[in-house]
Amino acid sequence: MKAQKNNEKLKIIPLGGLEQIGMNMTAFEYGDSIIVVDCGLAFPEDDMLGIDFCIPDVTFLEENYSKVKGMVITHGHEDHIGAIPYVFQKINVPIYCTKLTMALIDKKLEEHGMLQMVKRKVVKFGQSINLGDFRIEFIKTNHSIQDAAALAIYSPAGIVVHTGDFKIDYTPVYGDAIDLQRFAEIGKKGVLALMCDSTNAERPGFTMSERTVGRVFDRIFSEHQKQRLIIATFASNVDRVQQIINTARKYGRKVCLEGRSMVNVIGTAVELGYIDDSGNTLIELDELKNYPREKTVLVTTGSQGESMAALSRMAANIHKKIKIMPGDVIIFSSHPIPGNEKAVSNVINELSEIGAEVVFEDTHVSGHACQEDIKLIYALVKPKYAIPVHGERRHLQAQAHIAESLGIPKENIWLLHSGDVLELGNDSARIIGKVQTGQILVDGLGVGDVGNIVIRDRQHLAEDGIVIVVMTLEQHSNRLLAGPDIVSRGFVYVRESEDLMDEANRVASEAVNKCLDRNITDWSKIKSEVKDALSAFIWRRTQRRPMILPIIMEASV
Amino acid sequence: MKAQKNNEKLKIIPLGGLEQIGMNMTAFEYGDSIIVVDCGLAFPEDDMLGIDFCIPDVTFLEENYSKVKGMVITHGHEDHIGAIPYVFQKINVPIYCTKLTMALIDKKLEEHGMLQMVKRKVVKFGQSINLGDFRIEFIKTNHSIQDAAALAIYSPAGIVVHTGDFKIDYTPVYGDAIDLQRFAEIGKKGVLALMCDSTNAERPGFTMSERTVGRVFDRIFSEHQKQRLIIATFASNVDRVQQIINTARKYGRKVCLEGRSMVNVIGTAVELGYIDDSGNTLIELDELKNYPREKTVLVTTGSQGESMAALSRMAANIHKKIKIMPGDVIIFSSHPIPGNEKAVSNVINELSEIGAEVVFEDTHVSGHACQEDIKLIYALVKPKYAIPVHGERRHLQAQAHIAESLGIPKENIWLLHSGDVLELGNDSARIIGKVQTGQILVDGLGVGDVGNIVIRDRQHLAEDGIVIVVMTLEQHSNRLLAGPDIVSRGFVYVRESEDLMDEANRVASEAVNKCLDRNITDWSKIKSEVKDALSAFIWRRTQRRPMILPIIMEASV
Repeated sequence: MKAQKNNEKLKIIPLGGLEQIGMNMTAFEYGDSIIVVDCGLAFPEDDMLGIDFCIPDVTFLEENYSKVKGMVITHGHEDHIGAIPYVFQKINVPIYCTKLTMALIDKKLEEHGMLQMVKRKVVKFGQSINLGDFRIEFIKTNHSIQDAAALAIYSPAGIVVHTGDFKIDYTPVYGDAIDLQRFAEIGKKGVLALMCDSTNAERPGFTMSERTVGRVFDRIFSEHQKQRLIIATFASNVDRVQQIINTARKYGRKVCLEGRSMVNVIGTAVELGYIDDSGNTLIELDELKNYPREKTVLVTTGSQGESMAALSRMAANIHKKIKIMPGDVIIFSSHPIPGNEKAVSNVINELSEIGAEVVFEDTHVSGHACQEDIKLIYALVKPKYAIPVHGERRHLQAQAHIAESLGIPKENIWLLHSGDVLELGNDSARIIGKVQTGQILVDGLGVGDVGNIVIRDRQHLAEDGIVIVVMTLEQHSNRLLAGPDIVSRGFVYVRESEDLMDEANRVASEAVNKCLDRNITDWSKIKSEVKDALSAFIWRRTQRRPMILPIIMEASV
Repeated sequence: MKAQKNNEKLKIIPLGGLEQIGMNMTAFEYGDSIIVVDCGLAFPEDDMLGIDFCIPDVTFLEENYSKVKGMVITHGHEDHIGAIPYVFQKINVPIYCTKLTMALIDKKLEEHGMLQMVKRKVVKFGQSINLGDFRIEFIKTNHSIQDAAALAIYSPAGIVVHTGDFKIDYTPVYGDAIDLQRFAEIGKKGVLALMCDSTNAERPGFTMSERTVGRVFDRIFSEHQKQRLIIATFASNVDRVQQIINTARKYGRKVCLEGRSMVNVIGTAVELGYIDDSGNTLIELDELKNYPREKTVLVTTGSQGESMAALSRMAANIHKKIKIMPGDVIIFSSHPIPGNEKAVSNVINELSEIGAEVVFEDTHVSGHACQEDIKLIYALVKPKYAIPVHGERRHLQAQAHIAESLGIPKENIWLLHSGDVLELGNDSARIIGKVQTGQILVDGLGVGDVGNIVIRDRQHLAEDGIVIVVMTLEQHSNRLLAGPDIVSRGFVYVRESEDLMDEANRVASEAVNKCLDRNITDWSKIKSEVKDALSAFIWRRTQRRPMILPIIMEASV
């Protein structure tokens, strides 16, 4: 670390993650050094039609590229690593993270043919790395994926503790409990700011240990010994799968994984030794037929009702290899993420229709700290400033209330927005500016070519369809050579609405002819007359507002 | 009632309500008599783009119009009365129901200018009406709207008890508790079949009394005496509003209603005496300014996050008369209906951003019977056959499990689908046929003119937009007079994708010219060539599948 520059202050610049769950990314700037924590994607809101996912706008990093010393990743979930292949086409800096996290990033980079071009370094818990004016220490935490880290970010202006996503699990399934002692030790040194996970800040009490789920599995396995079990859970929840393997082994069942991301993530975890399958409980899908149904467990994706996930395909009876039968038992080892409730319910309805038995016992615990856990972290770290992160506004607000209840003065609690530049010194904190941020929409291969205008058009098209009016005018005379013809899609079923469409045609013709009679040669004028006449007619007759698109072609005869 | 015809059997023909919450409608047929129970609408599924709501297909009733003796309505919720103005344009029969239910139906008919054309008769609890071979008795129940009735349907083939939507509330806010004695008496006579509400059949235990909510209100009012209270709830929950009025009166606050349906329904309830406002607690919106904020309560629609409802407009700061301020307290006296969680959360985020306080204490109880309540009804009615109604497949299935656990033989439990014709005799039950049923989509003024094709087009348009290729050919020569021109909407932001659009134009031109060079005159052939070439090009370049719509115009020069 360089000699202390007393004049400099630390700047914290969130580039995403404060308006939603997802797109987590924060820049820390001190002097000529910038480090970046996390690089996640966000899943699209319901009204972002056709969008696959969103990534953060990193213009700020591009503009300060020479200062950016590296990127530190807290854990391997999509909302923390998913934007890497896209962002690294603009900025390419070394990545630092723990082993499993790196393995998942490697897979991503490999898929995009970028593995060779990015410098990567695996860090162990307790280790620190130096990046410019910063030193970053990795602290062991617990979460719904292994190898999750909190970060202690040392700068000449002070220490910032960033929890990443975390829970407190005194009895984790794999590895150690969260390193509470280290949080306390760092707290003792004096911490300038705590950036703490807000996801469950509205939930009172404590988050239960992952191990409690194992006990429920045990009971369900014991109560359904004559039936096939199908368990849907998150692909990245390695410990959950471990517990299913353990229980299956105890009850003499084989476990088969299904769903691309499930096979991917758990495969990686097995390879790296994060899963213990010493009893050879895991089998391949093709081996399933060699075992009686009641001696098998299928662990599958689709716990959120995603339409193309394995469980949804099974429920809809379009899965190529697995057919759900009456008597099969389906367990959702998950809670629906807000927004997915209806989709999950649709899958349950399909399963009920088949005659499968859906178990509603609770086989899920959250990976995020609840209110009392958050209080514990505050009590250990005792920060001067509280900066709630990772959540929607309601969650950040809820953590602010917690911080206040713990005696942190209101003016020391910062509910930031993405793009805010928060300048922190030991005796001052203020927002000194705003950098460009935003959501860049990814649709197929297109990154950012779909913006507000395109989305608004899609929303308009989705609501009432489109009515297209085409006509051909002669180049010089402006004589009507063809049309106007009307073509519609998504508006009405044309075969049963011939009268309406005939009338619409007459209305369009009248509007065009009126323009031509008045010798109007300005095409945009003609278009707007046609559009207005047709809009009014269609609204009167149907009370719908389809997109109306006049197209004029020019022909030189 | 006519003399018993021993050969005849009773037919139960559900026309909706068994695949979803909503669109409740069931026909009962005996000899030459048909009666219809309920006539509800369903709110559209997420993928029914642009649809306002759905109504049941009543072709069966139209085809048997002369037999239809009347319609009996159990209560005044939209999923039981909402389709009346549409269905009654096809069949017009007398309507029978209780007082508040009729008042809400009257409002609906009036809006559609149909009040004079429909014969209506208000029935009291305990009364019976005779309709052809049927006698129907109205039995008092409890629900989240007042005046809800169960029906005992007497036919020569036996008695069917239809619960309607119900809960068991020993201490209702208004009026009497459910008439359990009458259920028992009828049960003693011998009941052929029980058609029981399945909505909460997955929930263990009992449904709490509406009165318990009043106690929570009391605590919240007492804890927030310096702040304005804004309570969002269902417009139709008259008792909930009564409890708010009672609590407000106790704490010296005035209550103001906001939101069109809230003002409508509660206004009707006040007029008919279903709400006691003897303390003059209710005030008009315009009077609000005459009272200090902390002496007011606003009761508003929008508890489901509906985008145009009053609370959503307040949260988005676009409500014309009410501005939410930091310190205002917002109470959701409701649970999100599955599918609305995200919308509700968005409103909470906006409220948090403003600095309003959102109270998460539970101020809602369900209006539907839970498992133990359902068991009680079965125990009183002791039906031979169980026909679970009102719910998605998962809910019907759950009630089937309850019925089985009570000792009803599996073969006497009928999980019907809409359209099934279930023939019931005292010693037999079987499905003897299927009648036409379905969802008719209502979009603006259009009833049924949007079907599967239009919806699929809207889904396609929503996903990736549309690319239109227009060209003009000379009538006889097939010479290309103009185009091909390409216009797109909802595909890419054209100004930043000029290269792509130029190339797409070249691809289209090539395809057209190849056709013309080969003297192809079949337009559909030309269109399909253009479509295929352009689809392939666009997929390769963007991995998107916009709708591609070639339009050929014909000009006679």
